[in-house]
Amino acid sequence: MTAELLNRGAFSVFHELSTRWNDNDQYGHVNNAVYYEYFDSAVNAWLTKRCGDVTHLGALGVVAETNCRYLRSAAFPQPLDVGIALLRLGRSSVSYQLAVFPHHGEWPHVIGRFVHVYVDPLTRRPTAVPPKVAAAVATLSVIDPGPEANAVSASAVHSLKEN
Amino acid sequence: MTAELLNRGAFSVFHELSTRWNDNDQYGHVNNAVYYEYFDSAVNAWLTKRCGDVTHLGALGVVAETNCRYLRSAAFPQPLDVGIALLRLGRSSVSYQLAVFPHHGEWPHVIGRFVHVYVDPLTRRPTAVPPKVAAAVATLSVIDPGPEANAVSASAVHSLKEN
Amino acid sequence: MTAELLNRGAFSVFHELSTRWNDNDQYGHVNNAVYYEYFDSAVNAWLTKRCGDVTHLGALGVVAETNCRYLRSAAFPQPLDVGIALLRLGRSSVSYQLAVFPHHGEWPHVIGRFVHVYVDPLTRRPTAVPPKVAAAVATLSVIDPGPEANAVSASAVHSLKEN
Amino acid sequence: MTAELLNRGAFSVFHELSTRWNDNDQYGHVNNAVYYEYFDSAVNAWLTKRCGDVTHLGALGVVAETNCRYLRSAAFPQPLDVGIALLRLGRSSVSYQLAVFPHHGEWPHVIGRFVHVYVDPLTRRPTAVPPKVAAAVATLSVIDPGPEANAVSASAVHSLKEN
Repeated sequence: MTAELLNRGAFSVFHELSTRWNDNDQYGHVNNAVYYEYFDSAVNAWLTKRCGDVTHLGALGVVAETNCRYLRSAAFPQPLDVGIALLRLGRSSVSYQLAVFPHHGEWPHVIGRFVHVYVDPLTRRPTAVPPKVAAAVATLSVIDPGPEANAVSASAVHSLKEN
Repeated sequence: MTAELLNRGAFSVFHELSTRWNDNDQYGHVNNAVYYEYFDSAVNAWLTKRCGDVTHLGALGVVAETNCRYLRSAAFPQPLDVGIALLRLGRSSVSYQLAVFPHHGEWPHVIGRFVHVYVDPLTRRPTAVPPKVAAAVATLSVIDPGPEANAVSASAVHSLKEN
Repeated sequence: MTAELLNRGAFSVFHELSTRWNDNDQYGHVNNAVYYEYFDSAVNAWLTKRCGDVTHLGALGVVAETNCRYLRSAAFPQPLDVGIALLRLGRSSVSYQLAVFPHHGEWPHVIGRFVHVYVDPLTRRPTAVPPKVAAAVATLSVIDPGPEANAVSASAVHSLKEN
Repeated sequence: MTAELLNRGAFSVFHELSTRWNDNDQYGHVNNAVYYEYFDSAVNAWLTKRCGDVTHLGALGVVAETNCRYLRSAAFPQPLDVGIALLRLGRSSVSYQLAVFPHHGEWPHVIGRFVHVYVDPLTRRPTAVPPKVAAAVATLSVIDPGPEANAVSASAVHSLKEN
């Protein structure tokens, strides 16, 4: 499934959020960097709901790679829904597919990927995805990342020093 | 040149910036989303210096795609340098390679890409990169993006509706 | 009514909002500066709902003064309600009393004031509060600001150059 | 000294900072909430320089009250200087006078106050200002807060529950 075809139906889990006045930049649209605040908040709020406090999971989920494609602008004060799906569950990494929709809307403003790598809090070396997290992500709808995304994910784990 | 080998020497233009207390998240490191504020600010500050007010260039530079790989954590209050280089100058798009370095440091905390597509302010259809911008980016060091990034750039122009 | 006694009952209008992962600072609580994003967003979202696009009201509402007292910490991912009340409607200024509550909660995390001064978009000189805005704020519950706040408001109008 | 008369000469310590593209709101000026990020960052960067890691001072500095008056607008990409002075050193609180100047400029864009109350990390009850902090603030220039600010400071300590 290509990015252009990702619609609401590809997602079963959503995080609803409110926009803020200063999310809009000088052009009157949500600034490109702000979508990453949405991604971060959606994944962590959902993980907290499913797994409890994400800072107490044994392993620490550090963000190894993110990207975003901007398709249609959004603007304060519209409310938004962030769709969360699974691209790939690795031994120590989880790659999420995210998409930011108008509230109840069909086609996304942006689509993006968000890769968590779990590390040991002391050594900062990659370690296994916590069982609670693995169980939670197993309930997400799965989107085929294609060969490119698999390469990205492997490379993210490899290159991670500390984040 | 792979991402892991991108060091300070690949860049000839830098934007120095200060970190902020709340750039750090609960883990005491600069949050992943904040690096995109750095990218945005570096590109726009540099363009402003070279081309004047970026909101008065005729065409409007909208952000079509961004990504970031997180290699080594940074933290407030350390100052940072954002290196700016050119990946690809297209007819209507400019793809920048960015890297965030410790102030005067050799190896980046993160590396990323940032794609501007220029659109007509009224029709929002892609239009030619403004001559001032094309002249400015021609002075940047050039980094070979590889075939993947070229595909990304073409696709970004194609999929852009409005941002 | 002193600040310590301001509870949910003093407000009849609320703006519900979601917190974000990076609203929390290193101490795991919503950062002091972030409450001002909540204030700004609450007032502007409410004004937009009541008066339409706030950038097309003829006069421009510029923020002349804000303050905040932090009473009890909040933290992502809890949702919040911002209560909006009127302290004072002047000829060219509106002073709002704001309070950020836990969602459906009785006692505020913080309380604050937010003063809009309306200026002519061209001359930037104070001008009359737009009739639509005056009509909207007349529907808010009124909180006695005390003599100090009246002085603050008068002084804010006086000292405003351009914002 | 009234706020309108606070100029660069009242300050002996400055924190230089860079603005960011999205500091500007839809009106093309630095958003009111963003100045509090500047305040926070200036105080904490200066304290870190003078006292070391502010999260390891024994007592925890929590923000009890802030305010800001907006006098003249600023805008990205201009660099700014935050002036830091002392209003009042109490047993458990430090009240700072802050002012945000154009880089090397004489008259401030905004002026504000920032009150830290030091609390015991475990009990969250107010405790003595750490000796290192007291010694550092003793080197700042002192601005007479007037009777109003003293009342504010006392009240902030009194009303603080936890922040």
